[in-house]
Amino acid sequence: MHDDSRLTEWEQRAALPLAVGSLLFLGGYAVRVLGDGLPGPWRDLCLAVTGTMWALFVLDYVVRWRLSGQGAAFVRRHWLDTLVVVLPLLRPVRVVKTYEAVQRRHGRPRLALHLRVIVYAGLSVSLLGFAGALSVYHQEHTAPNATITTFGDAVWWTCATLATVGYGDVAPVTPLGRIIAVGLMACGLALLGAVTGSFSSWLLQVFSREDDERPPG
Amino acid sequence: MHDDSRLTEWEQRAALPLAVGSLLFLGGYAVRVLGDGLPGPWRDLCLAVTGTMWALFVLDYVVRWRLSGQGAAFVRRHWLDTLVVVLPLLRPVRVVKTYEAVQRRHGRPRLALHLRVIVYAGLSVSLLGFAGALSVYHQEHTAPNATITTFGDAVWWTCATLATVGYGDVAPVTPLGRIIAVGLMACGLALLGAVTGSFSSWLLQVFSREDDERPPG
Amino acid sequence: MHDDSRLTEWEQRAALPLAVGSLLFLGGYAVRVLGDGLPGPWRDLCLAVTGTMWALFVLDYVVRWRLSGQGAAFVRRHWLDTLVVVLPLLRPVRVVKTYEAVQRRHGRPRLALHLRVIVYAGLSVSLLGFAGALSVYHQEHTAPNATITTFGDAVWWTCATLATVGYGDVAPVTPLGRIIAVGLMACGLALLGAVTGSFSSWLLQVFSREDDERPPG
Amino acid sequence: MHDDSRLTEWEQRAALPLAVGSLLFLGGYAVRVLGDGLPGPWRDLCLAVTGTMWALFVLDYVVRWRLSGQGAAFVRRHWLDTLVVVLPLLRPVRVVKTYEAVQRRHGRPRLALHLRVIVYAGLSVSLLGFAGALSVYHQEHTAPNATITTFGDAVWWTCATLATVGYGDVAPVTPLGRIIAVGLMACGLALLGAVTGSFSSWLLQVFSREDDERPPG
Repeated sequence: MHDDSRLTEWEQRAALPLAVGSLLFLGGYAVRVLGDGLPGPWRDLCLAVTGTMWALFVLDYVVRWRLSGQGAAFVRRHWLDTLVVVLPLLRPVRVVKTYEAVQRRHGRPRLALHLRVIVYAGLSVSLLGFAGALSVYHQEHTAPNATITTFGDAVWWTCATLATVGYGDVAPVTPLGRIIAVGLMACGLALLGAVTGSFSSWLLQVFSREDDERPPG
Repeated sequence: MHDDSRLTEWEQRAALPLAVGSLLFLGGYAVRVLGDGLPGPWRDLCLAVTGTMWALFVLDYVVRWRLSGQGAAFVRRHWLDTLVVVLPLLRPVRVVKTYEAVQRRHGRPRLALHLRVIVYAGLSVSLLGFAGALSVYHQEHTAPNATITTFGDAVWWTCATLATVGYGDVAPVTPLGRIIAVGLMACGLALLGAVTGSFSSWLLQVFSREDDERPPG
Repeated sequence: MHDDSRLTEWEQRAALPLAVGSLLFLGGYAVRVLGDGLPGPWRDLCLAVTGTMWALFVLDYVVRWRLSGQGAAFVRRHWLDTLVVVLPLLRPVRVVKTYEAVQRRHGRPRLALHLRVIVYAGLSVSLLGFAGALSVYHQEHTAPNATITTFGDAVWWTCATLATVGYGDVAPVTPLGRIIAVGLMACGLALLGAVTGSFSSWLLQVFSREDDERPPG
Repeated sequence: MHDDSRLTEWEQRAALPLAVGSLLFLGGYAVRVLGDGLPGPWRDLCLAVTGTMWALFVLDYVVRWRLSGQGAAFVRRHWLDTLVVVLPLLRPVRVVKTYEAVQRRHGRPRLALHLRVIVYAGLSVSLLGFAGALSVYHQEHTAPNATITTFGDAVWWTCATLATVGYGDVAPVTPLGRIIAVGLMACGLALLGAVTGSFSSWLLQVFSREDDERPPG
C-alpha cells in the first residue's frame, strides 16, 4: 500500500515497547478485576497503568495514521488496528507476532511450520482466553442469577467454550457477557480450524513424502 | 443445461430487485416478530411487505420455469430454488451472491479466495442465523416451559448452535423450533467446514510456497 | 484376498434382496418400538419380520463364510460384517452402497466426488441417526429419571449429538442408552470429518484451478 | 541431536518393559481408584505396583539423561518426557508407539497411513480417556455437589468431552477435576483434527487418482 520509510521505522521501533505495554495493560486489568481485597492505592495504580497503556495505543494509532499520509481510508484499511484501539484487550495477541520477530532477529532456528501454527494459535488463544475470562468474570460475577461467580468458573467456562465443548453448567447471563462469549466462540472455531488444518496438511505432506520414497504401484 | 438468452437476461435483470426484496422480506418479518408494541397499522404494513415480497419470489420462480422450457424437471433440477420459494427466509442468503456480482461489475478488486470464503461464509451464516433466531423466537416465546423467552436469548442460543458449542442453558422445546434448530446445526457444521477448510488449504499453499523458495534438502 | 467367482456371484445376487431386507428390518423395528398402541397381531408381525430379516443376515454371513473357504480368519478379516450380524441396526447403512451400485449399473451420471461424499455421508448418518434414535428411545423412555421420554425428544437429542452441539437439555441416563450415544458421537465426528474434508479439498481444487488459469505472478 | 549408541541401545531395550510397566501402572491405579470394596492387602499391593512403576519411569528418565550427556538442556529438549515423569498417567500412550515398533519388527504388513492415523489416534485417545475418566472420578466422587458420582458417569462424561459434544448433564466441579477436563478437551480437539485431517487428505488422494485415470476435460 505505502512504503513510507518513516512509517516502517516507527513500527519497528514501537513494536517492542507496545508489546510490553500490552502485557502491562492486561496485567493491570487483571489485578483491577481480581483484586477485590487490594487496598485503594494499589487499585488506583492499576487503573492508572491500564489507562496510560490505552492512551499509548491510541497515540501509536494516531502517529501511524499521520505517517501513512492516508485520510479516512486508513481507518477502513487498518480496521483490525482500529478495532484493537477500541477493544485494547485484544492487543496482547500482537505480542505473539512481536515475539516471533524478536526470535528471528536473534537468529533462533524457526520451528517447522506445523508446529509454529499450533504454538502461535495456542499462545494467541491463551491470551485471548485469559482476557475473555477476565472480562466475562468482570461482567457476570455481580449479576443476578449469575452462574459464573468466581474467576475459576470463568476460566473453566472459557476453556469449555474455546474447545467448542460447551457444557453449559455455567454460562453468561448478561448481554455484554454473552457478546464477549460470542467472540470467544469465534476464537474457538478458528482454533479448531488451525488444529485441524495443521493436522490435515501435515498428513498430506507425510503422504507425498511416502509416495516419493516408495516405488510406484 | 439451457442457454436461453432470455432466461439469462431475466436472471441478470431480476437479481438486484430480488436481492432488495429479500432484505425487505427479512426486515418486514423481523419487525412483525419483534414489534409486539407497534400500533396495528404498522404491523399490517409489515405483513403486507412480507407477503408482497413472497409473491415476488413465487413470480420470479414461475417466470424462470416458463422461460426455461423445462417441464416438471425444473422443480427437481432447481430444487434449491424450489426450497427457497417454500421457505423464503432462506432467500436473503442469495444477497451475498448478488453483492459479489455487483462488486465484480464495478471492477472492485476481489479478495484472496481464502478471505472470500471466510467473508461469504460469515455473511451467509449471519443472515441465516438472524432469520433462524427470528423464527425460533417466533415459535418459542409463547410456548409453555420455554427457555427462549426474549429475542436476546434466541440470538445467544443461535450463536452457541452455529459454533457447535451448545451450552443448553436455553434450548427450543417446540417441535417446529427444534426443526429450525436442526437446520441451524447443519449451517454450523458447514461453517466449521468452511473455516477449517480455508485454514487447511491456506496452510498447504504456504507450505508449497516455502518448499519452492527453499533449496531442497 | 480371494477371487472366488462363486463368492462374487453370491454377493452380487444377494446385494439387492439384502438391502430390501435391511429396510424391512429397520421398518419392523421402528413399528415395534413406536407402535405402543398397535393391536397385538400387528406387533407380532413386526417382530416376525425383524426376526426373519436378522436370520437372513446371519444366513448371508454363513454362506459367504463357507464360500470364502477361509476358516476363523474370516471373522477377523470381515470384522465389520461380523459386527453388523451382531448389531443388525447398522445394516441399513449398506443400502447406500447398494443404491450407488444400482445407479451405476443403470448408467446414471455420477455426481462430482465432493457432492457424492456429502450425499453419502448425509444418507448414512440419517439412517444411523434414525436407528440410533429408535434404540435410544427404546432404552430410555421407561427408565426412571429419563429426560428422553418421547420419540421426538430422541430425534432432537440425536441431531444435537451428530452435529456435536450437545445441548444436554435431554440426555440418556441408562448405561445401554449411553453406549449407543457414544456410537452416535463417533458418527458425528466422522460426519464432521467428511464435511470439513470435502470443503477443504474442494477449496484446494478451486485454488489449483485458479492458479492454472491465471498468469503466474 | 545425539547419536550415542548406548542411549539408543538403552531406549530399544527399555521400550518393551516400560510399555508393560505403563499398563501395570494404569491397571494398579484403576484397581486402587475403583476397588473401594477390596480388602486392605490388595489395595496396598496396587499402591505398591503403582509406586514401583513410577519409580521405574523416573529411573529410565535419569538413565537417559545421564547417557545423553546433556545437562539441564535435556529437561527442556525432552519436555514431553519430563511431563510424563511428573504425570505418569500420560505414559500408557507410549504403548501405542511400542506396539507399532513390535509389529514392524515382526514384519506385519502396515496399514494404509489413513487407517494407521485413525487407529493410533483412537488407541491413544482411548488410553488417555480411560486415565482421564479414572482421575476425574478419583477427584470428583467425594466432592460436595458433585454430579460425577459413579465411574460410569465419569466414562460417559469423558466420551462427551472427547467428541466435543459436552452435554453438561454431568460435569466436574472441583478445581483439579476441571484441570484434567481441560486436558481431555485438548485431546478431543486433537482427535477431531486427526479424524478430519485423515478424511480430508484421503479425499484429496482419491481426487488426484481420479484426475489421473480420467482423460482431461
